[in-house]
Amino acid sequence: MGLRVAILGLGLIGGSAGLAWRAAGHTVVGYARRPATGRRALEMGAADEAVATLAQATDADVVVLALPVLAIRQLMRDLSPLLRPGTVVTDVASTKRHVERWARQLLPPHAPFVGGHPMAGKETAGIEHADGSLFRGRTWCIVPPEGADAAAVERVTRLAREAGARPLQIGAADHDRAVAVTSHLSFMTSVTLCQAVVAREDFRRVAPVAGTGLRDTTRLASGDPLMHRDICLTNRDFLVHELETFGARVAEVTDLIRRLPDPEAAPGDPAVDRLERLFAELKTARDAWLEGRLLEQRPE
Amino acid sequence: MGLRVAILGLGLIGGSAGLAWRAAGHTVVGYARRPATGRRALEMGAADEAVATLAQATDADVVVLALPVLAIRQLMRDLSPLLRPGTVVTDVASTKRHVERWARQLLPPHAPFVGGHPMAGKETAGIEHADGSLFRGRTWCIVPPEGADAAAVERVTRLAREAGARPLQIGAADHDRAVAVTSHLSFMTSVTLCQAVVAREDFRRVAPVAGTGLRDTTRLASGDPLMHRDICLTNRDFLVHELETFGARVAEVTDLIRRLPDPEAAPGDPAVDRLERLFAELKTARDAWLEGRLLEQRPE
Repeated sequence: MGLRVAILGLGLIGGSAGLAWRAAGHTVVGYARRPATGRRALEMGAADEAVATLAQATDADVVVLALPVLAIRQLMRDLSPLLRPGTVVTDVASTKRHVERWARQLLPPHAPFVGGHPMAGKETAGIEHADGSLFRGRTWCIVPPEGADAAAVERVTRLAREAGARPLQIGAADHDRAVAVTSHLSFMTSVTLCQAVVAREDFRRVAPVAGTGLRDTTRLASGDPLMHRDICLTNRDFLVHELETFGARVAEVTDLIRRLPDPEAAPGDPAVDRLERLFAELKTARDAWLEGRLLEQRPE
Repeated sequence: MGLRVAILGLGLIGGSAGLAWRAAGHTVVGYARRPATGRRALEMGAADEAVATLAQATDADVVVLALPVLAIRQLMRDLSPLLRPGTVVTDVASTKRHVERWARQLLPPHAPFVGGHPMAGKETAGIEHADGSLFRGRTWCIVPPEGADAAAVERVTRLAREAGARPLQIGAADHDRAVAVTSHLSFMTSVTLCQAVVAREDFRRVAPVAGTGLRDTTRLASGDPLMHRDICLTNRDFLVHELETFGARVAEVTDLIRRLPDPEAAPGDPAVDRLERLFAELKTARDAWLEGRLLEQRPE
């Protein structure tokens, strides 16, 4: 039987989830502060009903908080007195430790919280870019707090699966450490490269020789600045650790290149061999990762 | 009238140029050390004739050196006594200062040299992946040495244009500085990120949450290790300078994130504002660059 799902926040993720869950037979209530967004969700088929007050959204089996991390705390405060017994609360925010703590502090015990994070996104934000297939084959982290209600975990897991994603159960701290490594560090290198290259004063002079390499390595710098600000604020410790490691690696490889011989003297030089081995090993590691990922993502 | 073009080295770039130049009405002689590669070039239509000795390749209007940078020096030595008066020599290597110096030292004055570098490539090397449209709309750097023969420059420029590319005349040092900024630094950040993330011991544990961001920011690390080794060897000074700048930017942004307040205290904090402004400015700079590039690349 279909669930009644209230999605609070109709951006790219909220809108895409609405499309996917309606296609899976659930009833979707969409809450957006701006009435135009709610109307757009109805037109697109991302919601069965659009409401403009939280009180109208809380008659639901599951309430999904689909706002940026920093907006979730206030949303929980406003939502708390309105939640009915048995309604499960989840979210789709990029980091999980703060959200989990706020849920413990602010939500009533009769509305169990289970965190969530679909590993999907685009550089284009907003409901206009919502896409019901956005989550297909992607990991959707399910983050139950300690002692979480098993039925609540199962209900959120079911929604992730029925959006086309692969649910992965993980603790909040493990989640935040993992995304610092695999996602937030990538964003920060992309931003820093963009700063070192695209934003430099003389970039116009060198831009004609820029190609797809620079475009792709800086792609994440075109993402939503507020989302990334919130990520830095709520995952500071893990991200700083990863950035320090990355900075040390940059210093090492700079030093290795600095000590290269003149090209005429290159054959047999140990620094040249080390560099060549490093490039070959990293190519092998990356190719193996992507091959494994393709195998995993093959439809069952 | 079509030219007779000898391409020495039938890899991705040599093969793709052969396809493009034959389509433009030129006669292409392909030289490859391995006879199987020459046969494959004939089958694919990337050459009119395949030869296995340099002596058979030098009866040409233009000789194109399409080997990795470090192989070019020996190739010039072997080629030098065989070159006929009036044959123009060019290359397609990733860096230009060393190639230009070797040409001055090794090639006879009766065979004028003009460097070249098409800004196109793929992670998949070899003639199997050759593609006659590889250069379409891309910049092809034309790098005349001081006092270069004007007719030779014009002949190489014509070939670049007839491969579908946009010729851009630039000096060897300016070229090498520009590609260090726009291309080689991107590769090194991609490699270093791959080292810091994909090659770490516990990557298997966090890999399930890795998405397209990590895939794209590490893409260049799957490129040809030998080509990149040669780039590091022949563009060491400019690349080290760019890596040092980049490393300083990484340290700065790490420090900025380290000094962020707790998220609950975030509104109004100057570090939070600075970070948000930085992300927004870089997004604007990148989006403006790519929009401008799209406008430029629109067919005339």
